Amino acid sequence: MDRRVVLGPGDDCAVVKTAGNLQLLKSDCIVEGIHFLADADPMWVGWKAMCRSISDIASMGGLPLDALVTVAIRSDVEFEWLKELYRGLRKAASTYLVNLVGGETARSPGPLFLSVTLTGMAEKGKYVSRSGGRRGDWLFVTGKLGGSIDGKHLRFSPRVREARWLVGRFPIHAMMDLSDGLGSDLPRLAAASGVGFEVALKNLPLNKGLRSGKRSTGRRRLRTAFSRFRGPSNRALNSNGRKPSPGLQLTPIGRLVDSGRYEFEQKGFDHFRGST
Amino acid sequence: MDRRVVLGPGDDCAVVKTAGNLQLLKSDCIVEGIHFLADADPMWVGWKAMCRSISDIASMGGLPLDALVTVAIRSDVEFEWLKELYRGLRKAASTYLVNLVGGETARSPGPLFLSVTLTGMAEKGKYVSRSGGRRGDWLFVTGKLGGSIDGKHLRFSPRVREARWLVGRFPIHAMMDLSDGLGSDLPRLAAASGVGFEVALKNLPLNKGLRSGKRSTGRRRLRTAFSRFRGPSNRALNSNGRKPSPGLQLTPIGRLVDSGRYEFEQKGFDHFRGST
Repeated sequence: MDRRVVLGPGDDCAVVKTAGNLQLLKSDCIVEGIHFLADADPMWVGWKAMCRSISDIASMGGLPLDALVTVAIRSDVEFEWLKELYRGLRKAASTYLVNLVGGETARSPGPLFLSVTLTGMAEKGKYVSRSGGRRGDWLFVTGKLGGSIDGKHLRFSPRVREARWLVGRFPIHAMMDLSDGLGSDLPRLAAASGVGFEVALKNLPLNKGLRSGKRSTGRRRLRTAFSRFRGPSNRALNSNGRKPSPGLQLTPIGRLVDSGRYEFEQKGFDHFRGST
Repeated sequence: MDRRVVLGPGDDCAVVKTAGNLQLLKSDCIVEGIHFLADADPMWVGWKAMCRSISDIASMGGLPLDALVTVAIRSDVEFEWLKELYRGLRKAASTYLVNLVGGETARSPGPLFLSVTLTGMAEKGKYVSRSGGRRGDWLFVTGKLGGSIDGKHLRFSPRVREARWLVGRFPIHAMMDLSDGLGSDLPRLAAASGVGFEVALKNLPLNKGLRSGKRSTGRRRLRTAFSRFRGPSNRALNSNGRKPSPGLQLTPIGRLVDSGRYEFEQKGFDHFRGST
């Protein structure tokens, strides 16, 4: 790694110095039979593939800029299907002001592979990694949890504007995209930050039809619908669950604590408030 | 596309303005059963995957900088195999001073899929696309053609230093990576430049065991061993086949001519010299 590299592998994106700002780099892929089924709507498959990387850029507090799309295609895939796939890719790109600047098409003797690479920009000193969390930080999620169960996992909306809003106004220490679900991803943030966590299950903002006791364990079911930012932050941004602009639902769900303690508790939020 | 995008899809790389220089972006993938066989040496599979993208950056006259690697893996792939794959990726990266800054691993229910994205840098106004060729330009290849037939297709060496050397010294109008072979790739350069070409088969610098009459047509056989630059250039760089530093074999093979004419001729080089 040369000195231009601010942050290498292991976070949502890599961070590289450019002459002006920091450059964010993210590559992600989705595979037929793993991340989507053969009968899924190709438009939403394309949307999802693009939005996964956009969401990772957002979760660093960055602005997505340019995308490269690489597809390996089964020979029996119909042209119409591919057209719809690219319509979804383009729709997501234009929604988030991303330039589709290139890519590659190859044949696949097996399932369809779709890889999206995205560059992004963050102001110097303003990117937010997973590793900045500190003991005592509040833990927040944006939006609601559990939406992936109804097939919404294809249609999620990356929180670019919301993340930029948060990062611009509050001293967010750590932030992360919830792609595998709280139970899988929160330990990653804690480990990267060298801390533990306590989360009150009662406080989780769940989608209708989900109870906090019902935690799904399958990898596919845990894949969540929205990029949700857990922003351990200062007191200015906490505990009353108020909606900050731009219409962002921000819910305090717990705290970062001493390392070694990974706890999802049945107790409610008052517990945490009491321990402040 | 916003105004930062200098060059979008269709060339070897995308080109994007940054505060200082131009940024090159390239994504490429290789798929088991298409680009390599299951029994191939995984070290060289990794090498090839990284070098394909490096070669594309080189073919624009750029310096490769940062790489993202995305792999989708069959569940029965052994850990040792993967370790060797990454050894090859890292070996290529360190050989060409590329930072491996991130990536993603996913499962594949089918063949192994390996995608490498690379950023690169080119000085403003110094990148060389496929589309700048002009009628009357000389056509050159670097190195020898036809090496892919002996399985050398995995072990090729991108010509980063050589391309930078050429671009820094001569007014190269167009340049391109020969990845599918002269017969497939030259028409692409010609089409992008709005010109035709005449190539003298007798002048092609072929590897031992190949005669110019023996042209392979299968896609896999046409994949070539080295990135070779066809640099239509000025008189300073032509016609005597001398080796410019850094030890680069540069062979004039023909000319760019009026659009519509795509000709591989049996005649030798004197024909072209005569027509100047």
